[in-house]
Amino acid sequence: MFLRDHWYVAALSREITVVPLSRQILGEHVALFRTEAGVPVALADRCPHRGYPLSLGMVVGEQLVCGYHGFTFDCSGTCVAVPAQDRIPGRANVRAFHVVEQGPFVWIWMGRSEADLSALPDTPWLSDVERWSAVSGVAAINASFELLVDNLLDLSHETFLHRGSIGTPEVATTPIEVEVADEAKVVRVYRPMNAVECPPFYARTTGLEGKVDRWQDIEYTPPGYYLLHARIAPVGEPPRPDGTDDHAYHMKILYGLTPSSEGKVLDFWALSRDFCVGDAEIDRFLENMQVGVVQEDVDALNILQLRSDELMEMGEVSVKIDRGGLAARRMLSAMGEAAMSH
Amino acid sequence: MFLRDHWYVAALSREITVVPLSRQILGEHVALFRTEAGVPVALADRCPHRGYPLSLGMVVGEQLVCGYHGFTFDCSGTCVAVPAQDRIPGRANVRAFHVVEQGPFVWIWMGRSEADLSALPDTPWLSDVERWSAVSGVAAINASFELLVDNLLDLSHETFLHRGSIGTPEVATTPIEVEVADEAKVVRVYRPMNAVECPPFYARTTGLEGKVDRWQDIEYTPPGYYLLHARIAPVGEPPRPDGTDDHAYHMKILYGLTPSSEGKVLDFWALSRDFCVGDAEIDRFLENMQVGVVQEDVDALNILQLRSDELMEMGEVSVKIDRGGLAARRMLSAMGEAAMSH
Amino acid sequence: MFLRDHWYVAALSREITVVPLSRQILGEHVALFRTEAGVPVALADRCPHRGYPLSLGMVVGEQLVCGYHGFTFDCSGTCVAVPAQDRIPGRANVRAFHVVEQGPFVWIWMGRSEADLSALPDTPWLSDVERWSAVSGVAAINASFELLVDNLLDLSHETFLHRGSIGTPEVATTPIEVEVADEAKVVRVYRPMNAVECPPFYARTTGLEGKVDRWQDIEYTPPGYYLLHARIAPVGEPPRPDGTDDHAYHMKILYGLTPSSEGKVLDFWALSRDFCVGDAEIDRFLENMQVGVVQEDVDALNILQLRSDELMEMGEVSVKIDRGGLAARRMLSAMGEAAMSH
Repeated sequence: MFLRDHWYVAALSREITVVPLSRQILGEHVALFRTEAGVPVALADRCPHRGYPLSLGMVVGEQLVCGYHGFTFDCSGTCVAVPAQDRIPGRANVRAFHVVEQGPFVWIWMGRSEADLSALPDTPWLSDVERWSAVSGVAAINASFELLVDNLLDLSHETFLHRGSIGTPEVATTPIEVEVADEAKVVRVYRPMNAVECPPFYARTTGLEGKVDRWQDIEYTPPGYYLLHARIAPVGEPPRPDGTDDHAYHMKILYGLTPSSEGKVLDFWALSRDFCVGDAEIDRFLENMQVGVVQEDVDALNILQLRSDELMEMGEVSVKIDRGGLAARRMLSAMGEAAMSH
Repeated sequence: MFLRDHWYVAALSREITVVPLSRQILGEHVALFRTEAGVPVALADRCPHRGYPLSLGMVVGEQLVCGYHGFTFDCSGTCVAVPAQDRIPGRANVRAFHVVEQGPFVWIWMGRSEADLSALPDTPWLSDVERWSAVSGVAAINASFELLVDNLLDLSHETFLHRGSIGTPEVATTPIEVEVADEAKVVRVYRPMNAVECPPFYARTTGLEGKVDRWQDIEYTPPGYYLLHARIAPVGEPPRPDGTDDHAYHMKILYGLTPSSEGKVLDFWALSRDFCVGDAEIDRFLENMQVGVVQEDVDALNILQLRSDELMEMGEVSVKIDRGGLAARRMLSAMGEAAMSH
Repeated sequence: MFLRDHWYVAALSREITVVPLSRQILGEHVALFRTEAGVPVALADRCPHRGYPLSLGMVVGEQLVCGYHGFTFDCSGTCVAVPAQDRIPGRANVRAFHVVEQGPFVWIWMGRSEADLSALPDTPWLSDVERWSAVSGVAAINASFELLVDNLLDLSHETFLHRGSIGTPEVATTPIEVEVADEAKVVRVYRPMNAVECPPFYARTTGLEGKVDRWQDIEYTPPGYYLLHARIAPVGEPPRPDGTDDHAYHMKILYGLTPSSEGKVLDFWALSRDFCVGDAEIDRFLENMQVGVVQEDVDALNILQLRSDELMEMGEVSVKIDRGGLAARRMLSAMGEAAMSH
């Protein structure tokens, strides 16, 4: 069961070209392509004629031609040509999905109802290239959506799973605070690491020396939108009462969690920073580091899924650091029940 | 359910040697080998002792010795030796299948009843090396028999799937005629492409220039025997009333469709021509081209099968070009029902 | 169903280091590691927190730290630390398995009851490096435990499956004697090959020429302990009445048969000899030969399992050479029934 009436990241913007891309989202195969005019389009990836994937077809102008027998579709999914005859069967149309391009991502609405544009995540910093620089990517994980949510909501794993890169001892030892906004459907996890050693990357890029305040604040909007606010600042200098915080250095780490099929999930990410803006060397460093970190998560979640597939015993022992993940599970479960009762 | 009381191609003649070949046909594992005297033999590929594949054994003279413990069988499948004792258990025999070698193919009868030699396809041109030259091959497809029948009965796919090689626009745009001989169990599909551009290969090999008449006539005898008659001739010069047609150039493209197991099929082929006979360079060109064309079919059918395995929704929209395929499906379905009511 | 209350080889001694090893034994995942003090330890390979394999964790001193969130366990499986809090939940312990290191092997007790040390196989020659030299190894087989027992109890297969290495005609042609000790739970198979050609390896290493007596005596203690006594001696010179036999050359070939999961088995082996003791070149020769021989068994059993998985028909025809294997099957079956009736 998937939560359909939500926005999910379907692809990186740069993945969508005139050569169609096949991607499974919420169990459905989707053909993603860009018309010759540059417009991103998402159609159900199954020709109604004999079931051939439309993603193996060719974009011609503003149309997609099936690669098996040439059935041809416009961007709304309407069939506009079939071979060797003029009459076009009425049942030969395919579903078109609403997509929106925003910065490095193309978002998709897989719901049965009309797309709700007011619910589209607002990510202005991903388009504000003057003040923010971003790197982005995607990884396919052979694990359930739930295992990825667990992973992201409990960052204490950084200390162990990512000990060679982003993990420091304080992430695991610092107690967290959890805040659940049931109305707004947001789970927040605060991890204020005050007066800790400045990690080498931040020391080098910000010029800060010695101890710093390092905050990691999670803002998770189930099901598919996760934002981590990272803040590095001189010790004891919180944001000002008016909200300004320009004496600190910030990163916004967005994860787009997209269920692919039962037991498979797509893990989109974009790392943005408001320092060293436009520095291509820092871009490369962060991209390489993040690709490595995500691969560690992929490996861990793949083996967790394999083990849980084969074992009967699924017991868990939860501790205080799990409160964020448990809150997210409860919210997802409530949303699932609400969706089913519709 | 397979249609057993029919002849199928079991192997290319050149595949059968004194080193046994294991092949699954109609769900049964068959060990195919040639005795030292050169006779092709087909035995059930399972030693009655402990189930080891006989195809992993050794041919010694006119016998096959199991590669695990040495149980030995003659060409009729009779066990003639077991290790460390003289008495041979009566139950230790294996089934032998009737095989017939004809030109580049070895045909097999998998039926429970006696092999019907009168039903063996007659392919004299494959042995008439004075008047015809042939190239042959085989591909394994991870798709159902039915998907391959669909593919071969609707050649309009050449225009799209094989657009880089044999596909021309006219194959898809020319209306077809379909003829169903229910008594004789043959489906015929005629595609007369008159006054069309001569494809480059034919222009080069036949010397014809400008427009030509190009006919593609399918003759499908379910389940396993498919013959495509291709004819290239000067515009407006059909075969003479007496049937002679020596002003035209002909190819006979035979496909042997052999169900391997549920969801797997073997696609044997032989391309014969009555021009440039004996020209080894043309042989090589045609073989390379056909291997590429068949691989495009393999890729398409493999992905179709994968998708149909995972999807519930199996709807189709049929159009006029599908009449040949639909007729073949109906005939196969009727043959299946008749076989079950026996 | 596995026979749990027995000793099985868990790993080669050299496989167990401070970098944990994951191994599935009798269906259970086990993390095997050596503490920094050198003690071999086996813990259930599943962190009780979120199910991550403990084998992906780190050994720190005498403890194992989970590689996901840092739950920490001592050698008895007791949880001694969790992140970001002092209180340790009582349910956070994991099972520790009793292991015993003996020569090249580490044995494990997977039973629900207390480990029975009196039942541990006694293999003094594997530790007596003055009089015996040994080489050892392990292979993973994708076949059932039963297929491996069949294979080892009927050595007539050497003549065919291992014809390129250890197989000679006499192994298949010599009648066997079988002895079943139901009380002691041992199956013995005697194959006395008298006055046969000395195999080249023995001729070269022992200096014997021409004909020899060559005995192969199997001693199988189900389920997991198989010992083959090989004896080469001058013709007509049996062991003396007092049991001494120093005019002969001996090899002890131990197989540890460890069910991994349903349809998978681990095949541990150690080849010991009482001649050319300490000769590293002979070690290398025997190790290479045995790795090749075992690979032939692996290939044969893998294909046997694949075939038996897909076929309904499982008939067998047993002959005299099968008496050892049939006796082993009966004993295993009786042990299985006894275990279930407990």
